[in-house]
Amino acid sequence: MLAQELIARKRDGAELTDEELRGFLAEYGAGHVPDYQMSAFLMAVLLNDMSAAELATLTRSIIDSGRRLDFRSDGGPPAVDKHSTGGVGDKVSLVLAPLLAEYGLRVPMMSGRGLGHTGGTVDKLESIPGFRTALDLDEFQAVLADVGCAMIRQTPEIAPLDGRLYALRDVTATVPSIPLICASIISKKVAEGIEALVLDVKYGSGAFMRDPDQAVVLAETLVGLAESEGVRATALLTAMEQPLGETVGNALEVREAVACLHGEGPADLREVTLALAEESVLAVERGAPREEVRSDLASMLDDGRALARFARLVERQGGDPAVVSNPEALADAPIRATWESPVDGYVTCTDAYEIGVAAVELGAGRRRLEGEVDPAVGIELLARRGDRIERGEAVAVIHARSENSAASAARRLGKAYGFGDVPPEDPPLVWKRVTTD
Amino acid sequence: MLAQELIARKRDGAELTDEELRGFLAEYGAGHVPDYQMSAFLMAVLLNDMSAAELATLTRSIIDSGRRLDFRSDGGPPAVDKHSTGGVGDKVSLVLAPLLAEYGLRVPMMSGRGLGHTGGTVDKLESIPGFRTALDLDEFQAVLADVGCAMIRQTPEIAPLDGRLYALRDVTATVPSIPLICASIISKKVAEGIEALVLDVKYGSGAFMRDPDQAVVLAETLVGLAESEGVRATALLTAMEQPLGETVGNALEVREAVACLHGEGPADLREVTLALAEESVLAVERGAPREEVRSDLASMLDDGRALARFARLVERQGGDPAVVSNPEALADAPIRATWESPVDGYVTCTDAYEIGVAAVELGAGRRRLEGEVDPAVGIELLARRGDRIERGEAVAVIHARSENSAASAARRLGKAYGFGDVPPEDPPLVWKRVTTD
Repeated sequence: MLAQELIARKRDGAELTDEELRGFLAEYGAGHVPDYQMSAFLMAVLLNDMSAAELATLTRSIIDSGRRLDFRSDGGPPAVDKHSTGGVGDKVSLVLAPLLAEYGLRVPMMSGRGLGHTGGTVDKLESIPGFRTALDLDEFQAVLADVGCAMIRQTPEIAPLDGRLYALRDVTATVPSIPLICASIISKKVAEGIEALVLDVKYGSGAFMRDPDQAVVLAETLVGLAESEGVRATALLTAMEQPLGETVGNALEVREAVACLHGEGPADLREVTLALAEESVLAVERGAPREEVRSDLASMLDDGRALARFARLVERQGGDPAVVSNPEALADAPIRATWESPVDGYVTCTDAYEIGVAAVELGAGRRRLEGEVDPAVGIELLARRGDRIERGEAVAVIHARSENSAASAARRLGKAYGFGDVPPEDPPLVWKRVTTD
Repeated sequence: MLAQELIARKRDGAELTDEELRGFLAEYGAGHVPDYQMSAFLMAVLLNDMSAAELATLTRSIIDSGRRLDFRSDGGPPAVDKHSTGGVGDKVSLVLAPLLAEYGLRVPMMSGRGLGHTGGTVDKLESIPGFRTALDLDEFQAVLADVGCAMIRQTPEIAPLDGRLYALRDVTATVPSIPLICASIISKKVAEGIEALVLDVKYGSGAFMRDPDQAVVLAETLVGLAESEGVRATALLTAMEQPLGETVGNALEVREAVACLHGEGPADLREVTLALAEESVLAVERGAPREEVRSDLASMLDDGRALARFARLVERQGGDPAVVSNPEALADAPIRATWESPVDGYVTCTDAYEIGVAAVELGAGRRRLEGEVDPAVGIELLARRGDRIERGEAVAVIHARSENSAASAARRLGKAYGFGDVPPEDPPLVWKRVTTD
């Protein structure tokens, strides 16, 4: 069948057969279907959706475009990974991977860079002097065998078709489609060869899916798709009304992750990390007592074992392990500007989207995939949602490269923060759990 | 604004401003927006539609991509043209252009090739030995000044953006969109510099718009768009349940057009041609007595004046004028195979789509824009809808290049023809008239 006939069928709302869709994607992979046909197809998918069968075929085709690891049959500890749909201040992976490794699981983690208003784990790791995220698969597996976790950027050996499709979606306004998002996420995780996956699906103003109901649909689709590909999956819906933790910006977030790794730091970061860690353990140790698992994990943060594991990881991947004991080893911005409250009252709003954009504008993130990031810049949030604050009291500290960029971040914070006479009601931090159990 | 942001707005159902859409199309024309962004945009337009304002901007941008003629202010006779949405056996243009020229109007006609199951005026003209349809605009205007009509293929000087968009739509399943179709048609006609346009919008099984209500929407959109660009426009909705006239195939249709031009030939061809000619005259001679106009036009067919004008046109464009008196000057196919009725009864169905496909398969049309056509092949319909016929009586004569292709056309005719005990009710040949009056 001609490519345009397949596109026409998707345009008209028909369901493509496994053979049709697989053939179309293979022809695209081989360079026989041009980008202009694929982009018309992707727009038709975005507007007309995909059936579960089509989604499974798309996911499988992306997996089959590259190598597939297998940590399930080598006799080693259960391999697990986590994916977050993207938030502001989300440094959970930096804590979770060494914590789970310390618990006895393996965590072969491949992460992305920040994009749009959200940060990315790879950018955060690269703010550690010397840390190498571009390992090939052999080195990746060697680190994993040594440390129990390994954290790298996406490699072109895994799911290369996803990279091509994502680059095309990025410039053709076809990113925000639930089936396309799910196929992209799950294909890469399945190809990692893991046994279980936990998904942190954010909802609220700073999330990709602002609408809670849409976030639930996304979570259910992700979980169903992973399970259909043989990977146990659990999703937690977690709040992204305000940034997670008290820092936004790469080196600042590494500092905060280090604090969490030895039992300190903000309560929300610790809570989301422990909730996701607990689900990871329960996914591979079916029937384990939940409270006991949680308390074991918490003690590994409190007694420094998780931090020691993180130091091993940093050192093994070429980074300076001094960052765990000496925050000065991390980059520092030349300008620190305090932003003060204009009124007396409660902080009623700390809009995660606006704060994310402010950090990107400071240089902590990128607008386009190919951009550079500045590891040192970012924002510390001294006052958070629900805090009582006096006029003139410091609300946030802006870490900037220049006075100008600090001033424009301050203007953006003016839009992000809201104040009022009564404290706001908070959305639940961990709102829902989605599984197929 | 970035191209992907504009695409996103159209994807989300927003209306683009004149400046945004015009800028996007200009950037595409200049090669700065790649085909893969345009095709995603076109699919979003197809699925989300366009506002009247957006459609006007699209049309104007296509016009402005090339030269624009002007026959309105040169003191010559009123210039008019006709466009048909495409049918099977539709040779109206070959009769209409010389007839209106004889009446005293100017007809600067640019036509297309056949595509899909429908024929094209350019292919029909090119079956006349020597006839040149590829004139440049200077030669086109010289023929028009001499003869009163000129008939050429689309030139790259007029609306070149339409050619690029059409080629992209053809391979990305984005052809069947009312706004995209209307912008393509009207932009080219406006750029011809005419004063009035008549539109023959087909409905029924052989039409592009099978559904009568959809055909009315198409007619209304075409008329409104032409009027908004300052061209008086009238549309007639005409039946395309069965082919128009009794022949399908290029040289066969020229023969039939010649018959019509001297007052003979099938009644339906004569009726549709006169109805469109009458509308053309009334569009530029407001208030003229309709019956008198019709009878003047009919007499020009009956007394041979229209045919003489056609002979002048053929000669002036390099063709053999003998075709008007001597049909042997036209190509003849080596095989003539009679297809006979399998039953006694009335002809209840002569599916124009199937007959069009049969003609294409014989070689009279093309599946792809770049294909060649065989002028000689085609189908003569001896029995038509409503005719009473005996078993074994000849229903059609297949003009073929080979016995094999004749046999496969015969199988296709078996699907096209239906027979029954009672004569069918015919849809009205000229069903509705759409104007802004």
